Amino acid sequence: MNFNEYQSLVLASWFRLKYPHVALGALASSAPILYFDDIIPQDAYYSVVAKSFLESSSSCHQTIRQSWEELDRVASEPRGLTKLSNAFKTCSPLQSSSELKKYLKLLYVQVVQYNDPSAQPLKLMCDAINGAPPRKGLLQKIFAGLVAINGNLTCYVNPSGSDAQTPSGWFWQTCTEMAFPIGITRNTMFPPEPFNLNSFSNACKSEFGVPARPRWVTTYFGGHDIKLILHRFASNIIFSNGLQDPYSSGGVLKNISSTVVAIYTAKGSHCLDILGADKSDPDWLVEQRKTEVKIMKKWLAKYYADLHAFGN
Amino acid sequence: MNFNEYQSLVLASWFRLKYPHVALGALASSAPILYFDDIIPQDAYYSVVAKSFLESSSSCHQTIRQSWEELDRVASEPRGLTKLSNAFKTCSPLQSSSELKKYLKLLYVQVVQYNDPSAQPLKLMCDAINGAPPRKGLLQKIFAGLVAINGNLTCYVNPSGSDAQTPSGWFWQTCTEMAFPIGITRNTMFPPEPFNLNSFSNACKSEFGVPARPRWVTTYFGGHDIKLILHRFASNIIFSNGLQDPYSSGGVLKNISSTVVAIYTAKGSHCLDILGADKSDPDWLVEQRKTEVKIMKKWLAKYYADLHAFGN
Repeated sequence: MNFNEYQSLVLASWFRLKYPHVALGALASSAPILYFDDIIPQDAYYSVVAKSFLESSSSCHQTIRQSWEELDRVASEPRGLTKLSNAFKTCSPLQSSSELKKYLKLLYVQVVQYNDPSAQPLKLMCDAINGAPPRKGLLQKIFAGLVAINGNLTCYVNPSGSDAQTPSGWFWQTCTEMAFPIGITRNTMFPPEPFNLNSFSNACKSEFGVPARPRWVTTYFGGHDIKLILHRFASNIIFSNGLQDPYSSGGVLKNISSTVVAIYTAKGSHCLDILGADKSDPDWLVEQRKTEVKIMKKWLAKYYADLHAFGN
Repeated sequence: MNFNEYQSLVLASWFRLKYPHVALGALASSAPILYFDDIIPQDAYYSVVAKSFLESSSSCHQTIRQSWEELDRVASEPRGLTKLSNAFKTCSPLQSSSELKKYLKLLYVQVVQYNDPSAQPLKLMCDAINGAPPRKGLLQKIFAGLVAINGNLTCYVNPSGSDAQTPSGWFWQTCTEMAFPIGITRNTMFPPEPFNLNSFSNACKSEFGVPARPRWVTTYFGGHDIKLILHRFASNIIFSNGLQDPYSSGGVLKNISSTVVAIYTAKGSHCLDILGADKSDPDWLVEQRKTEVKIMKKWLAKYYADLHAFGN
């Protein structure tokens, strides 16, 4: 049987589809197999992020929403970048406000994506943002949220010596195979940043010398009309999602057939069900795993019955 | 929908298995998807050839069976190769008896494999072999069979200027992807010539610089436990075979599920059902094609019903 791991995302289901003689079934946790080509709206991912912040705390959501303009305003002042560097205790002086904005955007995304129920980083961050003394300004509130997630460090945002291999490898992967068209078009808590295929492909060309392949996934694995295609063709796949995971927006959330099923939890985050079990796990997570195991046991029982009926 | 063509053999079914979002179904005519690795006995192919000759005429079968020794005996005589060259009116002098034996072996194989019901080349050949005047020797009988198939030509066996591209391309294909382990081990009408993986792989190395990949098909597409693997996983494939086609020995001859079905005809030869219809077609062939069309119409009806139920 085939379980996927962190960052392998959609591979478990694809493996079952292409190699049914090797994998008896697949538990595809947090697999956004529909987040390709034109299957779903490009802003689905960031909509979940913004929605999660809004549901956690509307004032926190509001603070973040207002902060981008404030960051740009301060950056445009005389010695503005130095002010920002000091306010966020950056490890080296900021080269531009977008350096900081990019960092914060990623931080908000990760807080939601990996919002596991025991650590609750989203609540931790919003509590810090909301709990900062009222006299403090917008940026100091944001900084309080940042510290709440990272702990007390000597400096933040751009520490030296960070390993750039993983991001670079992931960029290669998104250029050549998993070209997620993720963008921000709607009025969320983030500044708009629509996905632009040309710019994306040019970035791939400039980094790796090859253009992006935005239709490779839908050509090679399919994705359009997923229920129509797979409800009779495929078997033995669990698509599990936590609806707090932004990638769940590109996941399969409806049963496709009796053996290609969707399981989701309202409060779950990215790949939560395939992490190691813990005493602090909430009931709904324990229940989700039980359901998954029960389904896989059925597959095995059916397999052994079939082996008896059809095997050599 | 996906039909295979001459020499593409197994591709239609494999295409449906790997790209169900592209091909709604497949008519895999004469597709020996089980003739790989260790799934079936290596002598299955030549057993069908010999059986077809035996059923067509036991004296014809007997003549061929005895001819190999006679060919070698004459070749070993003084000026024996010249005698053989004259007896078979070769276009250029034979370099060895195996040159002639290889040619004859391929001729017998083709006569059976493409034994279509209107031309009936197998009957034509055996009638000529059996009908040669009794005073004529074994080799003259064989030669009469050769002429019956090729017609009256100025010379036979090794004409110059034959295009070697197709055989060479096919050899490349068998080395790298479709490594059919076809050999002769049993006492058929042919001299034994067991399939030897080492020799085969060495021939690939010497011709193309790469060894054979005898397990590529079963790794990439599967093949073992075919019913167990595909009966619930796959859908919409017709495996059609004529049992006179030697490749049918590696074909799927039993239904795998309600939509992955096997259709065969006792008298059919290689890819007969996907050739153009003709007035002279026998009833069983007309019937086979009708059945296939009926099944495909069901697929289409189901597809449109599903499109209505699940489509956008």
